[in-house]
Amino acid sequence: MSIETLQAEVNRLRLQLETLQAKNASEPIEIGNYLLARLAQLKVTKMFGVPGDFNLSFLDLVEDHPTVDWVGNCNELNSAYAADGYARVKEDSIGVVLTTFGVGELSAINGVAGAFSEIVPVLHVVGVPSTEQQSSKALLHHTLGDGRYDAYIKAAENFTISQGIITDKDTAAAHIDRVLADCMTRARPVYLTLPTNLVYEKISSERLKIPLSRAQPPNDPEVEAFVLDEVEKLVQGAEDSVIFLVDACAIRHDARQEVIELVKKTGFPVYVAPMGKTVVPENYERYGGIYMGSVSHPDVKEKVESAKLILSIGSIKSDFNTGNFTYSIPTARTVEFHSDHTKVQHGVFPAVGMKQILPRLTARLGPAARKLEVPAFRAILPTENSDTITHAWLWPRLSKFFQPKDVVVGETGTSNFGLLEVPFPEGAVFVSQLLWGSIGWAVGSTLGAAFAAREIGMNRTMLFIGDGSLQLTVQELSVMLRHGLRPIVFVLNNAGYTIERCIRGPNRKYNDISNWNWTGLLSVLGDAELAVSQSHTVHTKAELSALLDTPSFGDTSKMQLVEVMMQMHDAPRALMFQTEMGAKSNPYNDAI
Amino acid sequence: MSIETLQAEVNRLRLQLETLQAKNASEPIEIGNYLLARLAQLKVTKMFGVPGDFNLSFLDLVEDHPTVDWVGNCNELNSAYAADGYARVKEDSIGVVLTTFGVGELSAINGVAGAFSEIVPVLHVVGVPSTEQQSSKALLHHTLGDGRYDAYIKAAENFTISQGIITDKDTAAAHIDRVLADCMTRARPVYLTLPTNLVYEKISSERLKIPLSRAQPPNDPEVEAFVLDEVEKLVQGAEDSVIFLVDACAIRHDARQEVIELVKKTGFPVYVAPMGKTVVPENYERYGGIYMGSVSHPDVKEKVESAKLILSIGSIKSDFNTGNFTYSIPTARTVEFHSDHTKVQHGVFPAVGMKQILPRLTARLGPAARKLEVPAFRAILPTENSDTITHAWLWPRLSKFFQPKDVVVGETGTSNFGLLEVPFPEGAVFVSQLLWGSIGWAVGSTLGAAFAAREIGMNRTMLFIGDGSLQLTVQELSVMLRHGLRPIVFVLNNAGYTIERCIRGPNRKYNDISNWNWTGLLSVLGDAELAVSQSHTVHTKAELSALLDTPSFGDTSKMQLVEVMMQMHDAPRALMFQTEMGAKSNPYNDAI
Repeated sequence: MSIETLQAEVNRLRLQLETLQAKNASEPIEIGNYLLARLAQLKVTKMFGVPGDFNLSFLDLVEDHPTVDWVGNCNELNSAYAADGYARVKEDSIGVVLTTFGVGELSAINGVAGAFSEIVPVLHVVGVPSTEQQSSKALLHHTLGDGRYDAYIKAAENFTISQGIITDKDTAAAHIDRVLADCMTRARPVYLTLPTNLVYEKISSERLKIPLSRAQPPNDPEVEAFVLDEVEKLVQGAEDSVIFLVDACAIRHDARQEVIELVKKTGFPVYVAPMGKTVVPENYERYGGIYMGSVSHPDVKEKVESAKLILSIGSIKSDFNTGNFTYSIPTARTVEFHSDHTKVQHGVFPAVGMKQILPRLTARLGPAARKLEVPAFRAILPTENSDTITHAWLWPRLSKFFQPKDVVVGETGTSNFGLLEVPFPEGAVFVSQLLWGSIGWAVGSTLGAAFAAREIGMNRTMLFIGDGSLQLTVQELSVMLRHGLRPIVFVLNNAGYTIERCIRGPNRKYNDISNWNWTGLLSVLGDAELAVSQSHTVHTKAELSALLDTPSFGDTSKMQLVEVMMQMHDAPRALMFQTEMGAKSNPYNDAI
Repeated sequence: MSIETLQAEVNRLRLQLETLQAKNASEPIEIGNYLLARLAQLKVTKMFGVPGDFNLSFLDLVEDHPTVDWVGNCNELNSAYAADGYARVKEDSIGVVLTTFGVGELSAINGVAGAFSEIVPVLHVVGVPSTEQQSSKALLHHTLGDGRYDAYIKAAENFTISQGIITDKDTAAAHIDRVLADCMTRARPVYLTLPTNLVYEKISSERLKIPLSRAQPPNDPEVEAFVLDEVEKLVQGAEDSVIFLVDACAIRHDARQEVIELVKKTGFPVYVAPMGKTVVPENYERYGGIYMGSVSHPDVKEKVESAKLILSIGSIKSDFNTGNFTYSIPTARTVEFHSDHTKVQHGVFPAVGMKQILPRLTARLGPAARKLEVPAFRAILPTENSDTITHAWLWPRLSKFFQPKDVVVGETGTSNFGLLEVPFPEGAVFVSQLLWGSIGWAVGSTLGAAFAAREIGMNRTMLFIGDGSLQLTVQELSVMLRHGLRPIVFVLNNAGYTIERCIRGPNRKYNDISNWNWTGLLSVLGDAELAVSQSHTVHTKAELSALLDTPSFGDTSKMQLVEVMMQMHDAPRALMFQTEMGAKSNPYNDAI
């Protein structure tokens, strides 16, 4: 067992003891400040949310806290999205969203559910009425009018893995620690209620001396050893016809480094699923690009599917992540490493998690003979007669604009599928929501991602979004301006919901939207003097190229918004392919 | 029993028979069109929502329907708010919101919960994956990634009174009819799922010949007769020292006309609770204004609390609706009429609903001697030295601007409390959300209210909202522009969340927001040429008065947006009083 794992185990036991013994030797601390102290220990520096009367007293503590800053969002859904984006980029921390009882928390619930679906550690703190008001079932505003004070908790239980319902000072710290530990170790959202009358109640600060750990519970050593033998045998039997297929859970469960070490030591070719893009640096010499079943580029499809052994790490087999369920990889040729189990061919081995087994596998396997070729993943600018900005041209052109350590947020829609088509430079990060796919998510997420990026020394933050999606959550651009963030926002103006036009109703009115004056937007949302932002519209390839080549555009001296005029029915190759298959395999289009 | 009640009972029984017999004589109809036919029967002309891949096939039917129009909103929360606003103004119909599975429906859930809390009939239709995909627990986008296809239904069960989960064509019509009947008769939101593979499945249209009724189940005649005797005795014993106190449920449960007839026949003074404002015309000679416990104007408080008998109709005793629980009316002097029961002093009589008993009470009671005086409810412009626009001046000034049949939407915050202070003209309607109190609600609600108002021949629709609240849901102004609506929007620019400053943190940064260029907004949101809208900023009383007196401002020839510059800490009298009491009675402010 590693030192880290052992230390985590020791701390967990000490906390359990602490809960039972309830020592009071240390300086007392308010429950609200206890929570903030824990968040500070977990490297949280931003709390997102919207004030409401049941969280105001806690907000005083947040505002006065030296290292946890309050980011007031324009609305709660956007704040949940922001917490999600923050957690995705700041991989060793968590996202935090604070809302008020009922109205606020329910507005945020879609953002929290998205973090559940996509395995992102987010803490949702809700300021709730006093314990006395709760017990008496007072007919307060923000209630359902019928005394059901548990209705919002029951809703939250569907979308969070753990709930801490604080009802007294004696158990408050244990609730807080439990949900935070669950949030980190399982990388999913958790829910915590903070009643107005307990925020300033003082409790012992003794527990704060014991840090919470993100380390997973240790693997069963006997099972792990057995699995290592099995995998080693399979690798040997495959005679270096082995590839890696890496996916998002490798990041979510904190195994990025372990994956990269294994990949580099063996030298086996590595491919990623769409959600796993940039887990492995895309300029790595043995990296071959994105595998998504039948939607893959033919070269990638052939290389992946012809390998004798596929070592799959952190896979999520959702429709959009698998080319609509078109993987052609027999289970008998696959080993799957997951956060809490390993699957060798058809056999499942519970309690053998990737974080710990991967380094041991790295130790066992030697460098491969590199007999498998890896197709180059390159962005190639097509030659087109027209000056119209097409998806076929746009994404390869943008890929030349990307720099190392850029954070690139792609919105569900054409943007995500376009970004999948081109490689990113060393250290650049792709942030997307392919499984949950909530339109508008990328705006809030960009806010959180930009804060995190600034903090951990990443380069620029960019957002790619369509005009339809941006209308859902547009107000959050104002919060970026207010907090001095300088993202580059690309608005693909294609007159409506193009991803939906690909699925159904290409010319239906329900896919139309109002055409906004996008270049006037930032001056309305807080930068009236255009002191900290610039906005542009580009109609042609030449105009966009010229803008991308302008040094002041890409240097983050100002926030940038670029409206990119595109054709209503144009879409990236992968999206068109995907939706064609979707239409065939399912009954959306029955009646067309 | 009335003819209407009997006819409703007959229809209910015929529908039950229909469900069992499943006749197939009539022309078959697609399930999607069956739903639309029912909605058309219920006078629904607008469906609000956002397209998503699981509702697109149904949207084809909506777009092609001759009388139910699609209103594409900017986001789902706003669409739920719009459905709520539509239902509030179009009192004999329901609001309908259509979203997609998971992401869409959860974004709307706060709006649906608000309709539950405030007793507003809203149908939430969700386009969901095919029944086959649901049974196989396919790992589709918009799922939680773990096959829990029932998670969203479980969430919805907390906020809707009835759920119709359509899983086959045989029971689809019965599910649709059941949830619609529940929605109407109980005036609360209901939830309906429409799987992609069933939208075009054909079913019998036989049931459509039997209309759904809004009529309540009949009262128990024996109990009702007993209650009538009791009430009559109490009225006689009170020797004309009797007042009415009317509240929102009188409208929600379709008893407005019955209330007005009773009030006018007896001539007893009538007061309303805040949520009941405009149930009774405010220019009625025996109308005395708003009673809200200790927050009431002293005259009103004295008159209400000194009456020997209070006939309370449709009361909702929430904190903001009762001056923070400061009613001083002994139960022994009160009769409460509710939708499904009557309470005479301390005795509860189930199954005696107001809709049916009130006309019988009207028949029994004769005109009163009018011995009780009624204080005049007038708006009096204060004399102030400064030209600053104050709340004390603003609302009386605005009340002179209001016209008969105006629809006035007040946002939770200073606006609602200000509007409560002044009387409205004959037929004007106050739309507010005092119990649920979700900030930002009023924008979406105004959209729905404006559609309904246009349809039923009301006058202008006005929105009063603060700058903080408007930022939550601002994009919906764009939908108003797009659909040719012409509301008058008053934006009270007081630099943040003033209602929260009243509660806590008057100078805290968390109550600050970004200052937007409000007068530039509409040109960005779709009216680039300012062809259909005008925007204004007013800094002084003189400027606002001049604007209000400009004929083209109030004639709805264009949509109007007025930014009203106000002081950060100024608030209406009732709000200051209310929050002062709130601070005393509960522990918000423990640590100040």
